Amino acid sequence: MSRILILSCGTRDLLVRYFKKSSFEKVVGADCSELAPALYEADAHYLIPRMKDPGYFDAVFAICEKEKINVVLPLQEDELNLIAENRRRFEDRGILAVVSPVEVLNLCRDKYAFYKYMKGKGTAVLPTYDSISDFEKAFSDHEIEFPVFVKPVRGAGSIGAMKVTCMEVLKALFEHSEEPLLVQKLCEGREFGIDLYVDLISKRPVDFFAKEKLRMRAGETEKSVTSTDPILKEFVLRAVQNLAVAGPIDMDVFFQDGQYYLSEINPRFGGGFPHAYVSGMNTPEYIARNAAGWENESYLEIKRKKLYVLKYSDVMAIEAPLQS
Amino acid sequence: MSRILILSCGTRDLLVRYFKKSSFEKVVGADCSELAPALYEADAHYLIPRMKDPGYFDAVFAICEKEKINVVLPLQEDELNLIAENRRRFEDRGILAVVSPVEVLNLCRDKYAFYKYMKGKGTAVLPTYDSISDFEKAFSDHEIEFPVFVKPVRGAGSIGAMKVTCMEVLKALFEHSEEPLLVQKLCEGREFGIDLYVDLISKRPVDFFAKEKLRMRAGETEKSVTSTDPILKEFVLRAVQNLAVAGPIDMDVFFQDGQYYLSEINPRFGGGFPHAYVSGMNTPEYIARNAAGWENESYLEIKRKKLYVLKYSDVMAIEAPLQS
Repeated sequence: MSRILILSCGTRDLLVRYFKKSSFEKVVGADCSELAPALYEADAHYLIPRMKDPGYFDAVFAICEKEKINVVLPLQEDELNLIAENRRRFEDRGILAVVSPVEVLNLCRDKYAFYKYMKGKGTAVLPTYDSISDFEKAFSDHEIEFPVFVKPVRGAGSIGAMKVTCMEVLKALFEHSEEPLLVQKLCEGREFGIDLYVDLISKRPVDFFAKEKLRMRAGETEKSVTSTDPILKEFVLRAVQNLAVAGPIDMDVFFQDGQYYLSEINPRFGGGFPHAYVSGMNTPEYIARNAAGWENESYLEIKRKKLYVLKYSDVMAIEAPLQS
Repeated sequence: MSRILILSCGTRDLLVRYFKKSSFEKVVGADCSELAPALYEADAHYLIPRMKDPGYFDAVFAICEKEKINVVLPLQEDELNLIAENRRRFEDRGILAVVSPVEVLNLCRDKYAFYKYMKGKGTAVLPTYDSISDFEKAFSDHEIEFPVFVKPVRGAGSIGAMKVTCMEVLKALFEHSEEPLLVQKLCEGREFGIDLYVDLISKRPVDFFAKEKLRMRAGETEKSVTSTDPILKEFVLRAVQNLAVAGPIDMDVFFQDGQYYLSEINPRFGGGFPHAYVSGMNTPEYIARNAAGWENESYLEIKRKKLYVLKYSDVMAIEAPLQS
């Protein structure tokens, strides 16, 4: 029987509940804020220092020892890297770190390197430029036109992303930005979110789920509907063959002019995972089986019912938040 | 026993549940989108035309007749006005419209008129200007300084609102904006959200709840904590004496430099109402009593426990959305 520590559990209340329904014996939540509601869903919960604090690993390992943790699951971008870079320290304690290799994490976060790499592997990706001169050349060659989409080369979610309609504004942004930017073809077609589980032992994709995003709000999917297009599944499974991702994976795919384009890969549980879960994709259980030393069988051929999944807000009321 | 129709129920799943727990015999939800999750919480649900569609009232009155509705509750800004303007048509059918008078709605939506009115009544409000020349005069008189807050004179939530740090950008915004703007002192102090119920029969405030907003996201309160400051309560109750508001009221108040300032009044259920409800403010029941012809007793002196309320996302999965 395994015991899992979920790091930066934040507002992932549903995810914690799904783990509690799986065969994990104990689900422990940790966060640096005592106002993270998912903490209070877990069987046990701990306040830990911020990732950059020198006391971070001491606190994490102390929880692991006290709670006899054998699986650790990071959810946030920066924490993925931190845990992957210290994978050996977890392994030395008999703890499985559910995270892709560091090189894959870095490639997925550097959106321009990712574009070049995936394009080189023959995956359809949206035309992307990391300098204003490259963009101007492509623009004068009629390879791309306005409006375009501008975002930081390294970035999470929709932070700092915007639509730009003319060269003047684009140049001003590139001149004044404090961080490297990239320009991408603006995709106004349909958008899909993918949940994938790549077995931690066999390294093969075990389950795949696709949903079409029907409405977004502040970078999050508000409403979505199950997609069962076999062409999308084939496109995604072919694309990930080129990357040594492992564990739960979230992907964004666009569909425009009759073709799918890979937009990004986030090697972690996505915020839209509940749609996959209510459709039968039981990633918490796949992780539990891997933690027990078993490979998962493949669920790739399972037919899933068409479901509309609609997000709404619930609240958790706490009288006495955790004290550090 | 009363039966209520909640219009544009949208993502107000918790509110629908609270009404279902009250003494209403039946809670009916309506929305123009079949993907409004709160529809599926209600005892019965209907798709209706958009507010501006000529078939809107026919559809609403048909539901009222079929479901023997005697209370109608609008939630959205535009719908408040529409229902209040047609109050007589509801009254003629024996239906109580839970909404403030049209004049009050108009005053609350025109943020500059609201500022002038409340200031004239002696309520502390944030310095506000509706023309660049007025602002420049106040600026040269050192009455206000940058950064400032710019927002549309008529607007809901945080749409179109932004922080501005210099006169050049401010002037450009006023020149190019398609709608009237106003400039307000930027308040970087603490922010409070108020829930109030003004009895529909006695016209007196019946219950009051205050929370401090601890974290916002995309214009919504993510985390809040109960506030029991008697000075805040007195400030709010004094301010609303000057307005003929009725029913559920949401208010925003700032605290800066040792003083409370009224920011805005939204004469409807606020998105943060669940915090008030879990603290014992049972507005659905107050409405039910008014609908039965009874005045509510006052709960203004009730002491409320300090609670932290933390928002998270839940999902509703639907196989077959409503068809119109």
